[in-house]
Amino acid sequence: MTVIYEKVALIGLGLIASSMGHAMKRAGVAGEVIGYARSKETRDIALEIGFCDRVEDSAAKAVVDADLVVLCVPVGAMADVAIEIAPNLKSGATISDVGSVKESVINAVAPNLPEDVSFIPAHPLAGTEQSGPRSGFAELFDNRWCILTPNGMPHVKEVSDLKSFWRALGANVETMDPAHHDLVLAVTSHVPHLIAYTMVGVADDLGRVTDEEVVNYSAAGFRDFTRIAASDPTMWRDVFLNNKEATLEILGRFTEELFDLQRAIRRGDGEQLHDYFTRTRAIRRGILDAGQDMDVPNFGRNMPHDD
Amino acid sequence: MTVIYEKVALIGLGLIASSMGHAMKRAGVAGEVIGYARSKETRDIALEIGFCDRVEDSAAKAVVDADLVVLCVPVGAMADVAIEIAPNLKSGATISDVGSVKESVINAVAPNLPEDVSFIPAHPLAGTEQSGPRSGFAELFDNRWCILTPNGMPHVKEVSDLKSFWRALGANVETMDPAHHDLVLAVTSHVPHLIAYTMVGVADDLGRVTDEEVVNYSAAGFRDFTRIAASDPTMWRDVFLNNKEATLEILGRFTEELFDLQRAIRRGDGEQLHDYFTRTRAIRRGILDAGQDMDVPNFGRNMPHDD
Ligand SMILES: NC(=O)c1ccc[n+]([C@@H]2O[C@H](COP(=O)([O-])OP(=O)(O)OC[C@H]3O[C@@H](n4cnc5c(N)ncnc54)[C@H](OP(=O)(O)O)[C@@H]3O)[C@@H](O)[C@H]2O)c1
Ligand SMILES: NC(=O)c1ccc[n+]([C@@H]2O[C@H](COP(=O)([O-])OP(=O)(O)OC[C@H]3O[C@@H](n4cnc5c(N)ncnc54)[C@H](OP(=O)(O)O)[C@@H]3O)[C@@H](O)[C@H]2O)c1
Repeated sequence: MTVIYEKVALIGLGLIASSMGHAMKRAGVAGEVIGYARSKETRDIALEIGFCDRVEDSAAKAVVDADLVVLCVPVGAMADVAIEIAPNLKSGATISDVGSVKESVINAVAPNLPEDVSFIPAHPLAGTEQSGPRSGFAELFDNRWCILTPNGMPHVKEVSDLKSFWRALGANVETMDPAHHDLVLAVTSHVPHLIAYTMVGVADDLGRVTDEEVVNYSAAGFRDFTRIAASDPTMWRDVFLNNKEATLEILGRFTEELFDLQRAIRRGDGEQLHDYFTRTRAIRRGILDAGQDMDVPNFGRNMPHDD
Repeated sequence: MTVIYEKVALIGLGLIASSMGHAMKRAGVAGEVIGYARSKETRDIALEIGFCDRVEDSAAKAVVDADLVVLCVPVGAMADVAIEIAPNLKSGATISDVGSVKESVINAVAPNLPEDVSFIPAHPLAGTEQSGPRSGFAELFDNRWCILTPNGMPHVKEVSDLKSFWRALGANVETMDPAHHDLVLAVTSHVPHLIAYTMVGVADDLGRVTDEEVVNYSAAGFRDFTRIAASDPTMWRDVFLNNKEATLEILGRFTEELFDLQRAIRRGDGEQLHDYFTRTRAIRRGILDAGQDMDVPNFGRNMPHDD
């Protein structure tokens, strides 16, 4: 691989940034990786693990001379970071981010950047329920999608460089309108997470079923929800606060359908239930065919010697 | 292992029955395993794979002389099977089942059985999204729970034999009141499945987001729902028709909490969201500590060479 960016600055050093660091090393696409995180502890871990070559104790210092700056902090922290780094950005630099919401990040970041840099928002659709600098790994983005939303940005060379960068990190790249991104993600990620959090909350709250029962008997479906609902609370708070409209729209559709199925259960309409449960199988088949999940039952969890 | 039952008859030869067949062979707890399934195709597969020693072309024939009969058909088919086998049951035999709902199965089966057999309902809390005779494997029940609901049954020796049997198949065994079982399972399994089906249905239905987008960008949470929602439609129709009351109760609690979080999003109440998302993490920790899930991020899906 050839180097695409001489100096890459990662602002925020959690799951996504550390995975990017590892993947950049694997691909050899960055000359030097400079990191900044809020806490000294995180910065020290980044150096110890080695997914950064150097860390700085402020975001402003970290971006000096960087050809690519990637904002890897929670969505709600993007504006402050943009304001802090703006004076120190190199002319001609590319600024990007990995935030799970795009319209509000664009509104928070773009107005604060100088004219002579290119801001190209991005969102790698890859993650786990873990967070922090120790949770990253080079393979996180392999065969996953990274969506760029370079809305009305005429910086063609800069966009194609960033695409090459993400492809070198293992991802497939797609471009999209930011509002459409936020709607698609509300369906494929944000509302599913809210629902999982809610279901786990209900179980936790239910006086007549003990937590011990919930825990022991979780294997029948519920534990998949608990994994999703173990994700970072700050990240998810920021997602919902910043993708309010699309989340509420999809939630509305969801409760509508849920009420319909609820009525079918109440009425004992087996045919409606059977039809509904049959239709949803096709989507699963599509996901397997597209290579976006493993085709081993139960995530391979019950295979010999899994636990 | 010593033989606990000389002859075991499995009625229905899908995921659960085939896993039981494999696990019985592994443990050496059954002298002979006799199988019956509705279709000749399934019966032939059972013989070919060898998780049954013999198959019969009717349930009535399969149970002749059996010391243990296990009903492994969908919950809605239990009554007919009970009626068919009743005349041929051996005096003193133990009759059990693996149905995901207990009260309605008891109501469907118990009145149809003769006085001189012991009916001890059971539910192994283990499964995958797959079904049919080829989907079973010996390890399915290892370290999972099997709940017996031997309500008011004074057949102490018969109950303890059945417990030993399930332990030999790898499971932990617990006894419970049938109505309580149905409530616990509504929380840990039935409502989560309904929600997953609904979410997948919503995504499939949404004109403004294409199926291709849903499929490609599913890695951010949604694909876990599609796995759950790929389960057998007949089994799940029967579960909801037969656990109506508990399902509707938990659904009511779920929508109540969901509306509360929805309001928090609308109002922009970040603190409420953050608190809620923090609380649910404790349940996940409990499940990992109890050995009911693997502690590898994202089910190990993103680990090197997974796809
Ligand atoms: N996790 C996912 O599944 C996923 C997937 C795709 C995109 N994303 C997006 O990627 C971004 C980062 O997520 P992540 O999972 O990598 O998070 P993470 O593991 O929790 O790491 C967040 C990093 O941001 C720093 N940070 C937090 N608040 C900050 C603030 N107010 N000012 C400055 N730095 C701050 C943290 O510093 P300390 O370590 O010092 O606290 C930490 O280094 C988010 O925008 C998220 O929406 C996440
Ligand atoms: N899957 C799970 O996760 C899980 C977990 C715990 C308990 N359970 C319970 O276990 C039972 C079986 O589930 P499974 O997953 O093993 O199902 P499955 O793989 O779909 O197999 C069902 C079996 O029952 C037979 N069958 C279906 N309808 C019948 C009828 N009307 N009369 C006679 N036989 C019939 C089928 O015969 P053919 O093959 O000829 O069609 C098949 O052999 C259900 O009561 C379910 O609630 C399931």
